Amino acid sequence: MSAISPRLSLNQATIKYADLDTALRVTRDAGIQSIGLWREPVAAVGLDEAVRRVADSGLRMSSLCRGGFFTAMPGQAQQTALDDNRRAIDETAALAAAGAPGSAAVLVLVAGGMPDGSRDLIGARERVRDVIGALEPYAASAGVMLAVEPLHPIFAADRAVVSTLGQAIDIAEAAGDSVGVVVDTYHVWWDPQLFDQIARAGRLGRIASYQVCDWLVPVPAENLLGRGMMGDGTIDFAPVTRAVTKAGYVGDVEVEIFNQQIWDAPHAEVAARVAEAFGAFVAPALD
Amino acid sequence: MSAISPRLSLNQATIKYADLDTALRVTRDAGIQSIGLWREPVAAVGLDEAVRRVADSGLRMSSLCRGGFFTAMPGQAQQTALDDNRRAIDETAALAAAGAPGSAAVLVLVAGGMPDGSRDLIGARERVRDVIGALEPYAASAGVMLAVEPLHPIFAADRAVVSTLGQAIDIAEAAGDSVGVVVDTYHVWWDPQLFDQIARAGRLGRIASYQVCDWLVPVPAENLLGRGMMGDGTIDFAPVTRAVTKAGYVGDVEVEIFNQQIWDAPHAEVAARVAEAFGAFVAPALD
Repeated sequence: MSAISPRLSLNQATIKYADLDTALRVTRDAGIQSIGLWREPVAAVGLDEAVRRVADSGLRMSSLCRGGFFTAMPGQAQQTALDDNRRAIDETAALAAAGAPGSAAVLVLVAGGMPDGSRDLIGARERVRDVIGALEPYAASAGVMLAVEPLHPIFAADRAVVSTLGQAIDIAEAAGDSVGVVVDTYHVWWDPQLFDQIARAGRLGRIASYQVCDWLVPVPAENLLGRGMMGDGTIDFAPVTRAVTKAGYVGDVEVEIFNQQIWDAPHAEVAARVAEAFGAFVAPALD
Repeated sequence: MSAISPRLSLNQATIKYADLDTALRVTRDAGIQSIGLWREPVAAVGLDEAVRRVADSGLRMSSLCRGGFFTAMPGQAQQTALDDNRRAIDETAALAAAGAPGSAAVLVLVAGGMPDGSRDLIGARERVRDVIGALEPYAASAGVMLAVEPLHPIFAADRAVVSTLGQAIDIAEAAGDSVGVVVDTYHVWWDPQLFDQIARAGRLGRIASYQVCDWLVPVPAENLLGRGMMGDGTIDFAPVTRAVTKAGYVGDVEVEIFNQQIWDAPHAEVAARVAEAFGAFVAPALD
């Protein structure tokens, strides 16, 4: 087996049922140097304790997932989302400071879907833009980069009204310097403008995170879990990875896979498979 | 109940289990003036007989579905696709000539997915562009408009590598004057560039067909059948319809719904529901 890429990061969602301690241990034991954390397992032990454990792990943190859900109408629900996202920004700053050098203070943002019963996609998109703009100064003062993640258009109605990389870059540009974008192969691989928009994001210094997993065919019945290990699907990782590299991205590359079979497998086995698939399909194009 | 819009066309796929005679009768009996035909029910009675029956029906034909499937590698499979599409062009011309005045000699093209085992999305897209370009002179000489239909990105791997309206317009522009695009709300409603691209297609005179059905949430397990009657989902039909109208489209508007529950309902009931939903959600924005 070849050496594990130093830029590989295991996103904790790939071993969803692991608690924070387990996730940190599994990652380190697999020889992976970086981890993408999620807020829920952090909250389960409390932020202060999570900060200590991340520091003890010796791992870098590549991002915290996730803030967002910005599509509520102005009023209490929108205020609640703003407050929660400010807490998520604070958590991101604390955890990144605790991680090994090279950790990234990046908070991944999922836009949220249209409110129940609404058909106003355009209005929802305008609210996302406005709320991220309102949040940017707080992120800037905390030294945190907000990373707008476009989700595959299949999720446009109910999970994320940000559907393309180009749209995410537009939002980032409008919001300010502390807002970037996530390039997640699963969500953007189909986009005819993908390579142009990766280059544009690079020129603007807006690529905050690069995540990889594969698109499976046939599309599984449970759409949300239809993500595959690199090599199991239809995505050609080399050209996308080269484009992200050429665009100037030098950070960690997260493997984030929502897939019930992978969740049900032993964590150490999953981490080893992630490292191997990353080495085969992604790492060669990073150099 | 209000009068049925004269521009409503019932796409035969909405009453999938009806043979040609039944589809023509159900459409006419519902007071709908136009029908979108499919090749298989035409082939079941033979083209000459189908031409007679369409002529007898007094209905307009708004389009024939469908040609395409252009992603095979050069060689026998690609040649077979070209031959089949030339036959489809001939069928389109014959059926449109048999339909009532105002019939449209429009052949809807579905691009096809990546060949089995391939990960070369870019190559597949290039072949689609090239094959449509090769087909255009034959369509032009037959007086048939080829209508490239972008399919929702969920189908990019296995059904259609043409994923956005902008990409479809690019293909049409490169291919020649007898190639246009289909605007199908289900496939394009999520696109942040939708309104710009509808306007662009209009300026170029490339809107060959406008089809409507709704996007359901949650997305059904059988993705291909996740289309809904207008009003049952998340699409706001008025602004899209106004944009298509403003772009200069004056043709029939097809209701095409792939949905098992609708297929299982009595045909006459489905036609009546189509007319009612069209009157409520689409027709007011056509004026």
